[in-house]
Amino acid sequence: MINPIFENVRKKSPLIHTITNYVTANDCANMLLACGASPIMADDVEEAVEITSLCHGLTINLGTLNQNKISSMLSAGKRANELGHPVILDPVGIGASKLRTETALRLIKEVSFSVIRANISEMKVLISGIKNEEKTSNEGSTKDGKTSNEGSMEGGKTRGVDADISDQITEENLAEAVLFAQAAARKLGAVMAISGAIDIVADQEKAYCIRNGHPMMRLVTGTGCQLSALTAAFAAANPNMPLEAAAAAVCAMGVCGEIGCRRLSEMDGNASYRNYIIDAMYHLTPERLEKEARYEVYEDS
Amino acid sequence: MINPIFENVRKKSPLIHTITNYVTANDCANMLLACGASPIMADDVEEAVEITSLCHGLTINLGTLNQNKISSMLSAGKRANELGHPVILDPVGIGASKLRTETALRLIKEVSFSVIRANISEMKVLISGIKNEEKTSNEGSTKDGKTSNEGSMEGGKTRGVDADISDQITEENLAEAVLFAQAAARKLGAVMAISGAIDIVADQEKAYCIRNGHPMMRLVTGTGCQLSALTAAFAAANPNMPLEAAAAAVCAMGVCGEIGCRRLSEMDGNASYRNYIIDAMYHLTPERLEKEARYEVYEDS
Amino acid sequence: MINPIFENVRKKSPLIHTITNYVTANDCANMLLACGASPIMADDVEEAVEITSLCHGLTINLGTLNQNKISSMLSAGKRANELGHPVILDPVGIGASKLRTETALRLIKEVSFSVIRANISEMKVLISGIKNEEKTSNEGSTKDGKTSNEGSMEGGKTRGVDADISDQITEENLAEAVLFAQAAARKLGAVMAISGAIDIVADQEKAYCIRNGHPMMRLVTGTGCQLSALTAAFAAANPNMPLEAAAAAVCAMGVCGEIGCRRLSEMDGNASYRNYIIDAMYHLTPERLEKEARYEVYEDS
Repeated sequence: MINPIFENVRKKSPLIHTITNYVTANDCANMLLACGASPIMADDVEEAVEITSLCHGLTINLGTLNQNKISSMLSAGKRANELGHPVILDPVGIGASKLRTETALRLIKEVSFSVIRANISEMKVLISGIKNEEKTSNEGSTKDGKTSNEGSMEGGKTRGVDADISDQITEENLAEAVLFAQAAARKLGAVMAISGAIDIVADQEKAYCIRNGHPMMRLVTGTGCQLSALTAAFAAANPNMPLEAAAAAVCAMGVCGEIGCRRLSEMDGNASYRNYIIDAMYHLTPERLEKEARYEVYEDS
Repeated sequence: MINPIFENVRKKSPLIHTITNYVTANDCANMLLACGASPIMADDVEEAVEITSLCHGLTINLGTLNQNKISSMLSAGKRANELGHPVILDPVGIGASKLRTETALRLIKEVSFSVIRANISEMKVLISGIKNEEKTSNEGSTKDGKTSNEGSMEGGKTRGVDADISDQITEENLAEAVLFAQAAARKLGAVMAISGAIDIVADQEKAYCIRNGHPMMRLVTGTGCQLSALTAAFAAANPNMPLEAAAAAVCAMGVCGEIGCRRLSEMDGNASYRNYIIDAMYHLTPERLEKEARYEVYEDS
Repeated sequence: MINPIFENVRKKSPLIHTITNYVTANDCANMLLACGASPIMADDVEEAVEITSLCHGLTINLGTLNQNKISSMLSAGKRANELGHPVILDPVGIGASKLRTETALRLIKEVSFSVIRANISEMKVLISGIKNEEKTSNEGSTKDGKTSNEGSMEGGKTRGVDADISDQITEENLAEAVLFAQAAARKLGAVMAISGAIDIVADQEKAYCIRNGHPMMRLVTGTGCQLSALTAAFAAANPNMPLEAAAAAVCAMGVCGEIGCRRLSEMDGNASYRNYIIDAMYHLTPERLEKEARYEVYEDS
């Protein structure tokens, strides 16, 4: 499955409009180039729609947010929807500020996303936010904004841009996390790509549990942002297969994290690792990805 | 010729004001340091003029554009003109949006540039835009904005920030491309530095065809931006020699691309290559540049 | 002394809000991760206060400044003060523009800083600016804005973002520089961390003269910015010890500059060096830092 999906990226070389934060924009651009795609970054509202129109896919990343970017995200997102291009949301740091939470919720209301890529804490904040909004609009008012009948997978605490430790996906709560992901996919009408020790990529009917990657990836800033940009490239090159494209992108990023890690010498740290992950993508073949991808598929029967 | 030009950069260590995009700003800064110059980045209109006044040269790069930056570009450009400092334009992604195209055209009208550095597609969009403007203002109105009597070198399609494949400069169309570059230089009153498989650096009377560089450089984001910043440093250290300075900068960047490429190990990809190119500039001597530069000069007789 | 201070950073993993320039933001983030801290970058006034509230420390860096960032700096700074979090100021390029100088002076008036980290030229501009302001407000008017009775340590010329050569701290003027630092610390009520060939970290009573680091660090853009972010992490993990925390951060950065430098191969230049410095921090242990830190302490008796 994964081999031809990646092969399409290499063959079609999709052009990806990436509206993203300035902290990791360079890494996202080089990662897109490494996988065979092309990046273009433009975040001003006066050109966002036109740029999106030239491209084959759009990534919206909420880092270093401001009003000008928000306007760009909304208008570019709507334009990409009109064109039938995949749009990927990375609600980075959602929950860390009202601005990010409200922007994510507004985007979800006004733009149709193919894939939402986030860590588990961010995803829980997102889902809680949507439930609160519904409650508020249903009841006219709500006391504390909490919902209370869906087990431990609700709530969600972000620690800045990292997942809270209490939110980790482990073997123990994997089944529950899959159910959470599928419920979220149903609610949001998008593929959920949830990053963690085990990654989950799910739509309403099917879920991939992916066991690639390395914990040290968290010590390189922007590996999540890169994965979101990558997901856009994979989805753009594989129309109407957002679930498989997102799963393949998550596997590819994880495999590159593993290859990069094996390459670390005694003196190499997170800065060299940053380069090695992108280098690994540059050399990754569809065949090798297929061989090294480790995942299980859960399907509703 | 090239040896003393680069030597001047190392000796004089010019300070370069770089108004550029946030995707590759870090690489531009490290490249300027590597060649012996010093970078300062400031893009707010409230300080752009003062910063330019402290510097010896100015680069204007249209990536991640917005209105605040445009105001800074215009006022800093005019100030640099008053001071007699070289100003370099990199119209990155021109043609990808009206904002970029119009900003480039406005800049060319209001600021006098020493060198315009772009890929062939960008340069063709720029020249077409100027012709359309002239036509519009000459005729009152124009039907389709196309001019039609200058052969295949007109038009120009940008694929995001990359040159369109149909625009590549090859041995077959080199003579035509040189004529195009010289006509553009005459029209714009600036040295044209056109990047491609073969690079062309031309003013009205003389053209350098430069055969340094490596195709893999296109897979490192920002090598074009770095070259533009570098060109500003070379021009600032060599007053009144913008043609030779630009040609030397293009040779230097290409030679570093070659040195960096030879250094790539089996696992190195575009991320390591990014570092190696800058590293190569750090170690490049004027003598080695002179020795490894490969170019022909065409002079009108 | 230094060993437990660094150990606290590794143990507590403070979350650092970094309002900084886009040129070196990525390096600051990876350096924070390398030392054991976590970064979050957010510079919009609509979220700056909330983000700061989640964090344990705040860095304010004046690079690529604009009005939106200034509002964020002021409000985040005040919020961090309310919370008792350390706030670090890096007045990068102060003196290069009125905007930067006035912003630095305003910040110092409205926010209480734990540590001000700058090169000697920047620090002199800062102190001169404060004296001019006092003079202006004392005398109603002032003729030329110069003060004239404090020896050669006044004035200060910035060459863009670098220290002017005439400002270098050497063995010859070290005693004078220490007095300058202590007077500045008294005036500003903050620890002064002055970078140079010899670094000085001082409060009113005590000064560390630190002899770690390597001159080549100046050829990597953002090593100063990284040190400022690092200082915030060290100060946040060691409450009420800003002097010792800043001294330890300066030693740590210098030691990493040395380790990274020893690792440079024949072809490595400033781009590889950039990675090696961060890599060195990733591997630095409190014990090794203690062992390799080279400093003398001057105490008022």
